[in-house]
Amino acid sequence: MPVDTRPIGVFDSGIGGLTVLRQLVAMFPDERFVYLGDTARVPYGNKSADTVQRYSRECADFLLEHNVKLIVIACNTASALAIDNVRSFTDVPIIGMIEPAARHAVQASKTGNIGVIGTRATISSNAYEVAIRQVVTSSQSNAGRPWKVPTLVSRPCPLFVPLVEEGWTDTEATRMIAEVYLKPLLSQHIDTLVLGCTHYPLIAPLIQSIAPGVTLIDCGHAAAQAAADVLGQPTTRMTEPSASAIREHVSFYLTDYTPSFQMIAKDFLGVAVEEPARTILRDLQVPSQR
Amino acid sequence: MPVDTRPIGVFDSGIGGLTVLRQLVAMFPDERFVYLGDTARVPYGNKSADTVQRYSRECADFLLEHNVKLIVIACNTASALAIDNVRSFTDVPIIGMIEPAARHAVQASKTGNIGVIGTRATISSNAYEVAIRQVVTSSQSNAGRPWKVPTLVSRPCPLFVPLVEEGWTDTEATRMIAEVYLKPLLSQHIDTLVLGCTHYPLIAPLIQSIAPGVTLIDCGHAAAQAAADVLGQPTTRMTEPSASAIREHVSFYLTDYTPSFQMIAKDFLGVAVEEPARTILRDLQVPSQR
Repeated sequence: MPVDTRPIGVFDSGIGGLTVLRQLVAMFPDERFVYLGDTARVPYGNKSADTVQRYSRECADFLLEHNVKLIVIACNTASALAIDNVRSFTDVPIIGMIEPAARHAVQASKTGNIGVIGTRATISSNAYEVAIRQVVTSSQSNAGRPWKVPTLVSRPCPLFVPLVEEGWTDTEATRMIAEVYLKPLLSQHIDTLVLGCTHYPLIAPLIQSIAPGVTLIDCGHAAAQAAADVLGQPTTRMTEPSASAIREHVSFYLTDYTPSFQMIAKDFLGVAVEEPARTILRDLQVPSQR
Repeated sequence: MPVDTRPIGVFDSGIGGLTVLRQLVAMFPDERFVYLGDTARVPYGNKSADTVQRYSRECADFLLEHNVKLIVIACNTASALAIDNVRSFTDVPIIGMIEPAARHAVQASKTGNIGVIGTRATISSNAYEVAIRQVVTSSQSNAGRPWKVPTLVSRPCPLFVPLVEEGWTDTEATRMIAEVYLKPLLSQHIDTLVLGCTHYPLIAPLIQSIAPGVTLIDCGHAAAQAAADVLGQPTTRMTEPSASAIREHVSFYLTDYTPSFQMIAKDFLGVAVEEPARTILRDLQVPSQR
């Protein structure tokens, strides 16, 4: 059992963060978790930095009220646009999706040709580019790494989220769209591709089949390893969490609940989410005009 | 000039309602309009009835504060789930998307085989089915109509909204997806198809090419005609509004603003939306648990 029995908080714009939660529970089967999905305002990927920062702060506040010892921002868009903002108002450690995945990508790449795909907001933010360059610059030594400067190529893939949520993870239309999206990255001979959205692990097999030989970086897996570093405690390296660990150790909160949630959640988490609680987040800021 | 100089209010979950606004300005070039797009919480189509009712009430309240004489709910999901709720707290006439389009569909159909496509929330609500049956039942006479009972077939097409917003209105992948979606409707030999989402006029040419000979019902056009009945004043039957009528007579408000809005809005409205104002809607209800 963990020494610090406070739960780990995880939030996402909706349902994608369940792929991250899955990795976290697999690594920490004895920890308790509070998961918040902001399903009333999903998605974040097509919204402005201002709005994503406001929403992220509200989500983090909700988790802090539950006395969490660590917050995982299980959403690439919120991590890209709001992690500094969230960090500025709490001393609780915050782990986002970007930095851990950037480290994994730099470690994995043999050529330094790294691709990044994500939502429009994530890609526009250049957060992965900044993080990858920072990892390269701050590394103690380049020994063992056969390249000095990364060549980055990124591309927003906004149709992947709705396709995954519809369960169209292996249709001819999805393959056609994926080929259009990945073409400019493959023509740059990337050897590593960051799946910079928590929905994308569900179409990883399709992406891998279009990009054979390319190492795919799962940001949820990278974040779970970063959480292990922060918590400084032994981890269990299971590939899949047990259904009982999820059922017994995770408290689920959603800001909206639809009948299709149950169905989609099972694909993302591996087990059904039983009876999520519903909460309404309060807007924090006064109305403003611009 | 109109006798009652108060503006007409129009709200939508985001950007789709601009296709409705386009029809309204074409029909009433001398009226003033207040348009509210709830872009901070878009889309409504995958959210629960509770949440859509709360959001719709907040949007309507915003328009009522602007002293509108009529509210057009330019969103099929909000019309399907929340029109009764909105009507219950104001005496200002409310026009939704469903009833006018249902009337047009009944008038247009020669066989009574009517198809309806829309978001998951709109289709699950059965609002079109109820409205179409009501139109048939309440008609004074069936004279001239060669059928007594409609045969309805409906299908949610959730991928159409993101495809349209990405500008993928005429790609091979979109055609493939549209064929999958429309197949069950065409196999029922529909002769009339309600485009039950304000985004769909932008892929009407593609839909028409897959469903040749089927009459497509544009809910924005039907709603504009319903507004003419309510206002009881002469209308201008232009097919396109003038850019100057839009620029001079419409006040635009959004709850979020992203750089891509300008670009997408031009496709929906026909002219660029200059400097929309930004507003934050306040959550009306106290937090609740279920």
